Amino acid sequence: MKAINTNKVIVIMGVSGSGKTTIGKLLAEKTQLPFFDGDDFHSTENIKKMASGNPLTDEDRQEWLFRLNHLIQENSNLKGCVIACSSLKKAYRDILSHSASTAVKFIFLQGSYETILSRMESREHHFIPSSLLQSQFETLEIPQNAYSVSIMQTPETIVDSIYNEIFNKSEIGLIGLGVMGKSLSRNIVSKGFSLSMFNRHIPTIEENIAVNFKASYKELATTQAFDHLEKFIDSLQSPKKIVLMIPAGTATDQMIQELAPLLNPNDVIIDAGNSFYQDTNARNRDLDSKGIHFIGCGISGGEEGALHGPSLMPSGSREAYEMTAPFLTAIAAKDTEGNPCCSYIGNEGSGHFVKMVHNGIEYAEMQLLAEIYKIGSSTGKNPEAIATQLSAWKDSQVGSYLLDITIEILKEKEQNNWIIDAILDKADSKGTGNWTTVEITKEGIPATMIATALYARYLSSFKELRIEISNLYTTQNKAETTSEIDWEELRSAYELARIINHFQGFWLIEGMSKKYNWDINLSEIARIWTNGCIIRSQLMQDFVSILKEEKNLLFSKNLIPKITQMRPALASVVAKAIQAGIAVPCLSESINFWNGLTTEKSGANLIQAQRDYFGAHTFQRVDADSGQFFHHQWVK
Amino acid sequence: MKAINTNKVIVIMGVSGSGKTTIGKLLAEKTQLPFFDGDDFHSTENIKKMASGNPLTDEDRQEWLFRLNHLIQENSNLKGCVIACSSLKKAYRDILSHSASTAVKFIFLQGSYETILSRMESREHHFIPSSLLQSQFETLEIPQNAYSVSIMQTPETIVDSIYNEIFNKSEIGLIGLGVMGKSLSRNIVSKGFSLSMFNRHIPTIEENIAVNFKASYKELATTQAFDHLEKFIDSLQSPKKIVLMIPAGTATDQMIQELAPLLNPNDVIIDAGNSFYQDTNARNRDLDSKGIHFIGCGISGGEEGALHGPSLMPSGSREAYEMTAPFLTAIAAKDTEGNPCCSYIGNEGSGHFVKMVHNGIEYAEMQLLAEIYKIGSSTGKNPEAIATQLSAWKDSQVGSYLLDITIEILKEKEQNNWIIDAILDKADSKGTGNWTTVEITKEGIPATMIATALYARYLSSFKELRIEISNLYTTQNKAETTSEIDWEELRSAYELARIINHFQGFWLIEGMSKKYNWDINLSEIARIWTNGCIIRSQLMQDFVSILKEEKNLLFSKNLIPKITQMRPALASVVAKAIQAGIAVPCLSESINFWNGLTTEKSGANLIQAQRDYFGAHTFQRVDADSGQFFHHQWVK
Repeated sequence: MKAINTNKVIVIMGVSGSGKTTIGKLLAEKTQLPFFDGDDFHSTENIKKMASGNPLTDEDRQEWLFRLNHLIQENSNLKGCVIACSSLKKAYRDILSHSASTAVKFIFLQGSYETILSRMESREHHFIPSSLLQSQFETLEIPQNAYSVSIMQTPETIVDSIYNEIFNKSEIGLIGLGVMGKSLSRNIVSKGFSLSMFNRHIPTIEENIAVNFKASYKELATTQAFDHLEKFIDSLQSPKKIVLMIPAGTATDQMIQELAPLLNPNDVIIDAGNSFYQDTNARNRDLDSKGIHFIGCGISGGEEGALHGPSLMPSGSREAYEMTAPFLTAIAAKDTEGNPCCSYIGNEGSGHFVKMVHNGIEYAEMQLLAEIYKIGSSTGKNPEAIATQLSAWKDSQVGSYLLDITIEILKEKEQNNWIIDAILDKADSKGTGNWTTVEITKEGIPATMIATALYARYLSSFKELRIEISNLYTTQNKAETTSEIDWEELRSAYELARIINHFQGFWLIEGMSKKYNWDINLSEIARIWTNGCIIRSQLMQDFVSILKEEKNLLFSKNLIPKITQMRPALASVVAKAIQAGIAVPCLSESINFWNGLTTEKSGANLIQAQRDYFGAHTFQRVDADSGQFFHHQWVK
Repeated sequence: MKAINTNKVIVIMGVSGSGKTTIGKLLAEKTQLPFFDGDDFHSTENIKKMASGNPLTDEDRQEWLFRLNHLIQENSNLKGCVIACSSLKKAYRDILSHSASTAVKFIFLQGSYETILSRMESREHHFIPSSLLQSQFETLEIPQNAYSVSIMQTPETIVDSIYNEIFNKSEIGLIGLGVMGKSLSRNIVSKGFSLSMFNRHIPTIEENIAVNFKASYKELATTQAFDHLEKFIDSLQSPKKIVLMIPAGTATDQMIQELAPLLNPNDVIIDAGNSFYQDTNARNRDLDSKGIHFIGCGISGGEEGALHGPSLMPSGSREAYEMTAPFLTAIAAKDTEGNPCCSYIGNEGSGHFVKMVHNGIEYAEMQLLAEIYKIGSSTGKNPEAIATQLSAWKDSQVGSYLLDITIEILKEKEQNNWIIDAILDKADSKGTGNWTTVEITKEGIPATMIATALYARYLSSFKELRIEISNLYTTQNKAETTSEIDWEELRSAYELARIINHFQGFWLIEGMSKKYNWDINLSEIARIWTNGCIIRSQLMQDFVSILKEEKNLLFSKNLIPKITQMRPALASVVAKAIQAGIAVPCLSESINFWNGLTTEKSGANLIQAQRDYFGAHTFQRVDADSGQFFHHQWVK
């Protein structure tokens, strides 16, 4: 995909006789852009057909549209242009704007049948007879994603209005200039979009945030900055596209409540915060009833990703997605093939759900690295020495963004000390790991490594208790060193644990997709997670193709021998760590889950027997049909 | 505590001149019970004092009340009696009914000051001058837990009314005759309480449940059975005490909505279902606004416990608890000292919360036994052989009800086959383990073994997936046999895992008790869990005294050397099982949690560094004050 630029391609659309050529020429003059009349690109067959009073079929139009699309592509790479072209159907408009390197802006000249008929009847030398007007109105699909101008004004007024819309108003509005909002703003501008920025005004606490931010980066010179919501809204092109980059929960609800009365049907709110997916479901329903579009857009990549291209997980109605797709795909990271790491996830809050699971997987990935770091330091290795060992893994199957930053972190010093040694070992969490674990628990899909990673963070936060208890149990703590580490074994263990973690995450997405009929494409999820996001990795790259073939990672013919070979390494690493007194909850859970998953006959029959014994809860039998329940008269 | 019997001890109470002696004598005649006039038991000093117009002090009254209490205790073990005694204060009534082997029924003769004054002025030969009446009214605390009769009726009518209340109406009402409701009904009757039973009427589906149940047990002959709610309510003594034994959730809400309009202030609803504690909080508030008492009562013990004495965890207002305490303590199991396994937990839904955690602990206890069973069978041992090994543990520290029933289950055969082998290994769950795990997750208190046990049940339910995956990974499954098991090592591992499980459970209760100001007594919780409930055990018995000294089990000077000694066994068992391909998630989690808890310096500093690296989430430093947060400018 080519880089987006700031060239304007403006298509003046509407039925015959609405004044496209007149307005187009005047606008081209005012903007100093070349003008093209779409009608000039019709084949002689088409011209003859229309002149004879026969309307064109879609087939007749196709070659013509392709020709115009070629013209648009060409001019989008030059200085832009103005084109007059009826563009009556959405499908035509889609062809016209396909692969343009700048967003194509449609201007809809709006007039009633009667007005236009009387105008046409007073015109001469036009090859389209008025008899075709009726068919044009029948064909017209009123555009949702265009700026509409009434033709009941002078051409000069119309052109001024269009000019003002395109050159004085912004294509995108962004609300909330925290760390992420600022980075995303710079990203948006760098992709050639005109941008208005808003940050709330709290006297003496948050004042002129947007204005000051704009002033601090040259590249933001063309943006518009506001403390005042109505003015901000007024600065946006229609239909308005507003990105929320504010804290999830109440703050988001309040902002939507303030925004809704200021918006019109067809405007789009894009919530790029870390919202809980069920909140997104509710907001979707609420705004839908007002005709306002709502896109819940999961976003991952941290500050860096927001700036250079994050992974985006948008959901909502397909229609709303398509209105925002040119923008979203432009600012997203690109995969190895150059395709945007942005894909329509499904309806409702499915995007935020997928983002939540992304973060759940991330929790486990981080915990696994923390356990490996702990194993590494148990032999007395310093951070730098551990980093050196881990550096050897960078180009292997376990290579990942999180591994890379771990190596960087372990090498980092302040004065002569490693900074990692100065950081307090109390891990915080901000909600998504918690939410994922609650969902796992409620839905009965045991993506256990996520829960385990969350609980490990919780336990770390009880630092004072840990100190107290470890002082009471000093004898055993002496065991807390292992013999020399087999780093190759550890690497295999880590790889398998990561495969299991990812299996669990995709399994959870698949389960919820079924439950809510989201119809999520797992391979696409893996693909948009190959770049821009925190859990991008070599493994993720592999999963893209595996998940094209298999909906379950573990069914992959390539993985079966690899996993079979790696299992003993994982078991051995866990066994040694546990015996050495090292907490490896996530590595442990991965092998236990794996052992459980590959066990045809578990010990759960005893649990069912106990439940029936003390509570008459009944059980199923191996020798009876599924769904039949039995109670045994236990001898007591 | 002596067994409760059906003897009636009736105290006619009220101010001087309300007619206690007259009514008492008539009632004694009608019921053929002996009559005692409380005034006859005053010391001569008291009589002189009253005759001189001086009111008695509480000190004056004490000896007199003790004398009457002695009389009540004596007669409660004979055929009962009627006593006339003013019993003006709650404290006096508490002394009178203390340690009686039957519930003492107070009848309050209710009349206005004016009515009684005019009656007294027309009386002769009474040693209490009317001048004392004012002080009597000032002293009177109107009883909440008494049957009130207006004195503005003929003595015969009053006596008939009292007789009807006590001999034709039931002390307790019970709603819901499922497995637990039926067992609890038989328990209530066996403790000498008169009982009305109600079960909803659903034409052709649930008809005459109560009547048929009554007919099927001789011991229920004196009960009253209803399909009709109003008639059921009308059959109860005032204030009414109604036990709900129906499914938690909507069914409970609906029943409370039906009941509320039929009840009077001071009536008590006791919800003995497995309600979610936050629902209990809400119901408490709602009924409180109507003046109706609500006791959320956790109950454990299954069918057997309900029948012979469950462990009870009641909560709500202290006042409401005291009204129901004679009943609840009577039907509860008894601990080794003979005290009831029933204790006031705290206000709001604290009882249901504690019961929820009880069930959480139970989930982990059951899972541990399932893992031991699975380890046992991995060497090819048959169920009976495993039972034989486990039988040797019965009298050790790991002895428990769940161990006992596990042994019974493993020995059980149908024809020539062990029934355990016929039971499908898909474990169900009914909500409390799920709720506990959600609370753990939301509150940040990692009682991880409960979560792990729940997830193990979930994984077991994916039987079809397990079969599919285990067929794809056949090679490694061959490793699924261990060498000969060291049963003594396994016993130690099991003991330590159980201690950690109980620590986590009590830790969770303590955390929530602090959060909600429930002021829960952990030692009392352990005590009421020593009998009647599913998790009763030898260890629980030990915890009663440990938790009297320490709010944290692990601080116990007795446990420190034991745990230190057992740790290697737990680590070794887990290491061997994992390597043999056996899933031991709960045993594993116990040692990982333990390793984590006894680790002063965890690996969580790396997690904080990663979060700061990609999201600028900041961290605390070991060399700075707690609560100060830092962001590092990472070299990128």
